[in-house]
Amino acid sequence: MLATLIHGPRDVRSTEVDDPRVEKPTDAVVRVVASCICGSDLWPYRGVQQTKKTHPIGHEFVGVVESVGDEVTTVRPGQFVIAPFIVSDGTCVNCRNGVQTSCLHGASWGSEDEDGLPVSGGQSALVRVPWADGTLVGTDEMPPEDLIPSLLTLSDVMGTGHHAALSAGVGPGKTVAVVGDGAVGLCAVLAAKRLGAERVVLFSRHPDRQALGREFGADTVLEERGDAGVEAVNALFDGVGPDCVLECVGTYESMDQALRSVRPGGFVGYVGVPSGGAELPIRLMFNDNVNVAGGVAPVRSYIAELLPDVLSRTIDPGRVFDLTLPLAEVADGYRAMDERRAIKVLLQP
Amino acid sequence: MLATLIHGPRDVRSTEVDDPRVEKPTDAVVRVVASCICGSDLWPYRGVQQTKKTHPIGHEFVGVVESVGDEVTTVRPGQFVIAPFIVSDGTCVNCRNGVQTSCLHGASWGSEDEDGLPVSGGQSALVRVPWADGTLVGTDEMPPEDLIPSLLTLSDVMGTGHHAALSAGVGPGKTVAVVGDGAVGLCAVLAAKRLGAERVVLFSRHPDRQALGREFGADTVLEERGDAGVEAVNALFDGVGPDCVLECVGTYESMDQALRSVRPGGFVGYVGVPSGGAELPIRLMFNDNVNVAGGVAPVRSYIAELLPDVLSRTIDPGRVFDLTLPLAEVADGYRAMDERRAIKVLLQP
Repeated sequence: MLATLIHGPRDVRSTEVDDPRVEKPTDAVVRVVASCICGSDLWPYRGVQQTKKTHPIGHEFVGVVESVGDEVTTVRPGQFVIAPFIVSDGTCVNCRNGVQTSCLHGASWGSEDEDGLPVSGGQSALVRVPWADGTLVGTDEMPPEDLIPSLLTLSDVMGTGHHAALSAGVGPGKTVAVVGDGAVGLCAVLAAKRLGAERVVLFSRHPDRQALGREFGADTVLEERGDAGVEAVNALFDGVGPDCVLECVGTYESMDQALRSVRPGGFVGYVGVPSGGAELPIRLMFNDNVNVAGGVAPVRSYIAELLPDVLSRTIDPGRVFDLTLPLAEVADGYRAMDERRAIKVLLQP
Repeated sequence: MLATLIHGPRDVRSTEVDDPRVEKPTDAVVRVVASCICGSDLWPYRGVQQTKKTHPIGHEFVGVVESVGDEVTTVRPGQFVIAPFIVSDGTCVNCRNGVQTSCLHGASWGSEDEDGLPVSGGQSALVRVPWADGTLVGTDEMPPEDLIPSLLTLSDVMGTGHHAALSAGVGPGKTVAVVGDGAVGLCAVLAAKRLGAERVVLFSRHPDRQALGREFGADTVLEERGDAGVEAVNALFDGVGPDCVLECVGTYESMDQALRSVRPGGFVGYVGVPSGGAELPIRLMFNDNVNVAGGVAPVRSYIAELLPDVLSRTIDPGRVFDLTLPLAEVADGYRAMDERRAIKVLLQP
């Protein structure tokens, strides 16, 4: 089958490899219908994160179950499934607490499971899925073709935006600012509106992203950043800032923007993978009761809630995909995202 | 009148100074019935925090209103009042949001108000209180003498322990660990139990504090610290730790203990004044969704909720006072707390 391997900085190739197979009775093998490239895939692509040895890459996909092991009970061959970006057993204490990303027996796509058996990457034609019951969420029926992009966002970006909003306590009557206009930031706008936010401000300087942000529900777009950004967003909310800020980037600058934008006593919900090693300034947080919640999003928890809204076309997060390529051209997709020519790239095997 | 002045490290003296008076129509002057020494007063006392010039000290007191300005409407001469540890106007946006510690027109005791007029310290016989309506909370009747210590804790430590518990999301069914066995940590145990925590573990190595912690509701006391402490508390809760950890010290070591003790997806509620400049390790927090909430406690918000429980003797937080001295002997009180011979010292003018 065709799989995507990363060999090192700016060296991503689609390559023929052996088909994966059911290795354990709790496994499934899924034939991928659509996968995609994540902003966080750009960290190893750009060399910010080291690639020690060649490995499969990609952690977001939807597909149809090809085969299952004897102990799999919740999904069946022929069923359409959504795969969260982390493998989880669904039964350990952290999974029961809804934090499947901290599963005691979990695994990452494109890596190995706890027994050292290979786990496929998501940017592939077929994927071996450990803990199929704990990991995959199946739909009752085969969804229509045009819903595939939005269903694919439940693998990561829509669930991640939702996690930012939940972590920041977004709800009816709350005021919100979103830092980051990538796919996650845009989904965070959609999630905040869906949860009833009274007013949502998006920090963005890119016309196409501003436009999609407005369509997703942003009431105001601010182009200012840094001190000017803090001043501008504070001015919109009683001079002190909004109740909630959703940090969807992960850099020192974006977290600083978030911490200084939120009102005293407010919450920063953050989901951007921290890069650059910056730590959080506790004294700033302490003095104004700026609370920080979030982390790597347990999207497995959220699929049950978000899926009906996608199937009923109440939300359309799949609009974050603005480039579709065949899997064989995955390297072009990485280049397009790296150069910011695309918000998010969908891959079709 | 007698007031306490700090001149520099280990140099705290009770001194005769002019009586304060009503300077503005929103002021009150309060005759102090009881004040006390705070753990945070030890920072300037020990020289950890610099004292640039001699100033009055003390920020916790209860007393009887002596006189009020023309615009004061909620307290009257002769009324018993509780003073939170920060002056707040009660009307600005942050006060309306319940974050009186970030009041836009607030002031600190022993400092100056926004117009440069002197604000008395709490360890005095009389105190000028700016924004009397926004700051003070009066009782309907003169409370009985033996309730004074517990009422005094509503100035700071009981409200602060309650803030730690609320910030960490403590409620019915939640499991809790408390880092810190000072007055705030002990009050945090009491607050957690009062909010319905299922099980409370206290980290403590001092027999007298362990005993009071148990009386306040701690189900388990752990003497381990550092890695051994993390291992011990994790073992008590499914191998992953409790839902909530209340950090009531403010050092790097105590925050590290808290962050590593809480379960993935759990909350650290912190109220210890950060010392030593340590920042928060965002990657550790991100990977396991360890949330951090809290800060300087807006105790003014909590007096209305906690006061009835004190007056009805449902809770008895005043037991944290284990030494009572006349105000003239305040220097002895600082020494006793510095040398950890006393948990908390009450001062009677």
